[in-house]
Amino acid sequence: MPADLPLIGDAARRARTAARVLRTLPSSTKDAALLAMADALVAHTEDVLAANAEDVEAARVAGTAESVLDRLRLDADRVAAVAEALRQLVELPDPVGDVVRGSTLENGLQLRQVRVPLGVVGIIYEARPNVTVDAAGLCLKSGNAALLRGSASAFGTNTALVAVLTEAAEKAGLPAGCIALLPADRASVGELLGARGLVDVVIPRGGAALIQRVVAESTVPVIETGVGNCHVYVDASADAGMAEAIVLNAKTHRVSVCNSAESLLVHRDSPHLARLLTALVDAGVTLHGDEAARAAHPAVVPATDEDWATEYLSMDMAVRVVDDLPQALDHIAAWGSGHSEAIVADSAAAIADFVAGVDAAAVLVNASTRFTDGGEFGFGAEIGISTQKLHARGPLGLPELTSTTYVVTGNGHTR
Amino acid sequence: MPADLPLIGDAARRARTAARVLRTLPSSTKDAALLAMADALVAHTEDVLAANAEDVEAARVAGTAESVLDRLRLDADRVAAVAEALRQLVELPDPVGDVVRGSTLENGLQLRQVRVPLGVVGIIYEARPNVTVDAAGLCLKSGNAALLRGSASAFGTNTALVAVLTEAAEKAGLPAGCIALLPADRASVGELLGARGLVDVVIPRGGAALIQRVVAESTVPVIETGVGNCHVYVDASADAGMAEAIVLNAKTHRVSVCNSAESLLVHRDSPHLARLLTALVDAGVTLHGDEAARAAHPAVVPATDEDWATEYLSMDMAVRVVDDLPQALDHIAAWGSGHSEAIVADSAAAIADFVAGVDAAAVLVNASTRFTDGGEFGFGAEIGISTQKLHARGPLGLPELTSTTYVVTGNGHTR
Repeated sequence: MPADLPLIGDAARRARTAARVLRTLPSSTKDAALLAMADALVAHTEDVLAANAEDVEAARVAGTAESVLDRLRLDADRVAAVAEALRQLVELPDPVGDVVRGSTLENGLQLRQVRVPLGVVGIIYEARPNVTVDAAGLCLKSGNAALLRGSASAFGTNTALVAVLTEAAEKAGLPAGCIALLPADRASVGELLGARGLVDVVIPRGGAALIQRVVAESTVPVIETGVGNCHVYVDASADAGMAEAIVLNAKTHRVSVCNSAESLLVHRDSPHLARLLTALVDAGVTLHGDEAARAAHPAVVPATDEDWATEYLSMDMAVRVVDDLPQALDHIAAWGSGHSEAIVADSAAAIADFVAGVDAAAVLVNASTRFTDGGEFGFGAEIGISTQKLHARGPLGLPELTSTTYVVTGNGHTR
Repeated sequence: MPADLPLIGDAARRARTAARVLRTLPSSTKDAALLAMADALVAHTEDVLAANAEDVEAARVAGTAESVLDRLRLDADRVAAVAEALRQLVELPDPVGDVVRGSTLENGLQLRQVRVPLGVVGIIYEARPNVTVDAAGLCLKSGNAALLRGSASAFGTNTALVAVLTEAAEKAGLPAGCIALLPADRASVGELLGARGLVDVVIPRGGAALIQRVVAESTVPVIETGVGNCHVYVDASADAGMAEAIVLNAKTHRVSVCNSAESLLVHRDSPHLARLLTALVDAGVTLHGDEAARAAHPAVVPATDEDWATEYLSMDMAVRVVDDLPQALDHIAAWGSGHSEAIVADSAAAIADFVAGVDAAAVLVNASTRFTDGGEFGFGAEIGISTQKLHARGPLGLPELTSTTYVVTGNGHTR
């Protein structure tokens, strides 16, 4: 048990106590609380917007870029949208209590593996205040207490949001301390990562630097999310129109998200290389390519190893012409981040080899990488996309915020 | 990717390459290899025993206790038993390729969540050489490469075992490097824990000190196993004979294992306290109790907080008389290790509250804690019992040595 946590200790201990109650609550109580929280957010829109206006103004004075200000900024529509997201959680099935498997053993013991909440979930995230509401809602619906560590720039907004959420949740019968906003200084992250025994899992939502720090420092188990160096491989057998549509969509539909594509790998026997590169350049993409790619289009600038490794999150794309599918698999194994890898092909053999050979959260066959998403998969809201292999891989929805317990029922059974 | 791993780098890189092949192999190839490995072990029994005799002799000269020597020692029967364990793995279903869930989305995308191997699994364990064979077999059957870091005292035995296993596995078509024994010095553990990017998961099998080190130091994801501070709670409603049988079995059936009970909690209204304590004392158990327990039996020595916290692994047991079930739950929440917690009761309400309120890998109702075991649960061989909440909780069998990939198949789908 961690000894001294001056910044987060009180909140973590209250959350731990709250979690023991939360795990026993029926779905109806949790759902009623989510609806009450949604109503309270709408009712207190003006308070939230006033706090948000101060955060946005302070960030502007500090010289924050407009794109970041936009993510920080709330308006009445955005508040209504996060409230609506809470209401949609009510429609999703509660995973707690689900029997994952069960059997009666030969000796008569009844075995059931039952879903239970994780307990206390810590979430470290960046400027967007909607994450505060989404994360709190997902945690509570799945029976977990939430320790929220948002960014300093959104602290006023988050304080206002958590005050509204907490009051509504407690009035609706959830235990005190089930949601808490942690101080936004750097040291609070360190305390959270060291709070083994009080906190059951930490989920960092952010860039590679944050995730590196969390992985190196945390003694609390971590679920990694979000870094996506995704590839589209265009096989020699690919249809030209399909390849063009998928590559353009994967790269340009929304460049700032983790499931957008960063690298294009094209089989050297594909007759469509020049067409694909022209389409990308015409769409405004800066291409960083190997020699064969540069030979196919004059706008391609030289690529280095850094290009193969980079999650651009911009209108840039690395391009490599590969000798065959095994070389594409080698490239993805060497440089991919295990998020989403797509193949465009008409050859069943090539598709089978790609699916068997790629080690990632999602493999997309003749579909854009942009589909790796909890909403697109039909799972409802997600707290992030896991790129690790343990516990949960891919979109993290409600079942991924649970653990299990084996309940073994006997009648005086001994060995 | 870790830069410099002088002790384990070559083995880890070979394992990583081997893992890319292993994940694509059909069950038939893996099963044939397991059978070949079993045959080879039996055929090379004399080589293995010769190496083992040297290890045992060196340990004896170093003053090792007889109980530890016994765990280190092999004979022809024990070699035959580990070979037989490999053959039994062939009978278990291969989890790789299982479709965990699947659906066709509204837009026609076909979604399948498929089990895939973890990749490279590192296992850190103590003197028993049978773990070398068991762990290698479980990893290969589930499509994983195994990096085995056994104890220095068994290094000669393990070297002989791994030589036999490796030769047989490779002859049967498994890729070179799929099993490797790591050097047994302390620094090799540090390298393994830092081999993020090469090693996918580390499983420590050992005492609390090893697990503490691994959790604090590892940047590779960890599955914790094995520390069991298990309780038996005897409710006021419990049948006297059932309570006595379960408490005796949980404590005395095999004291050195993680699923044996270490603490007894008795409801103050139970009329059976004296009978239970007498049965335990008569069985040779040293009881460490609170005042009420000491008042009930003269042989009970005073307990301190250390007794509540200790995994004795011996014929000792802590005893506390609790005011009610909530106090028992508080005690377990404060001192338990999340392994196995048992209730003996005839009250359905008490059973329901205990099951809902205990947060552990297994909750046993009117059954001994000794049943928390992969073999007892019908899962076949296990690599340990996880006491953590992420990924896998309870016995770690073959499915728990896998991850999943979402395979998303479209026909030119874009967003």
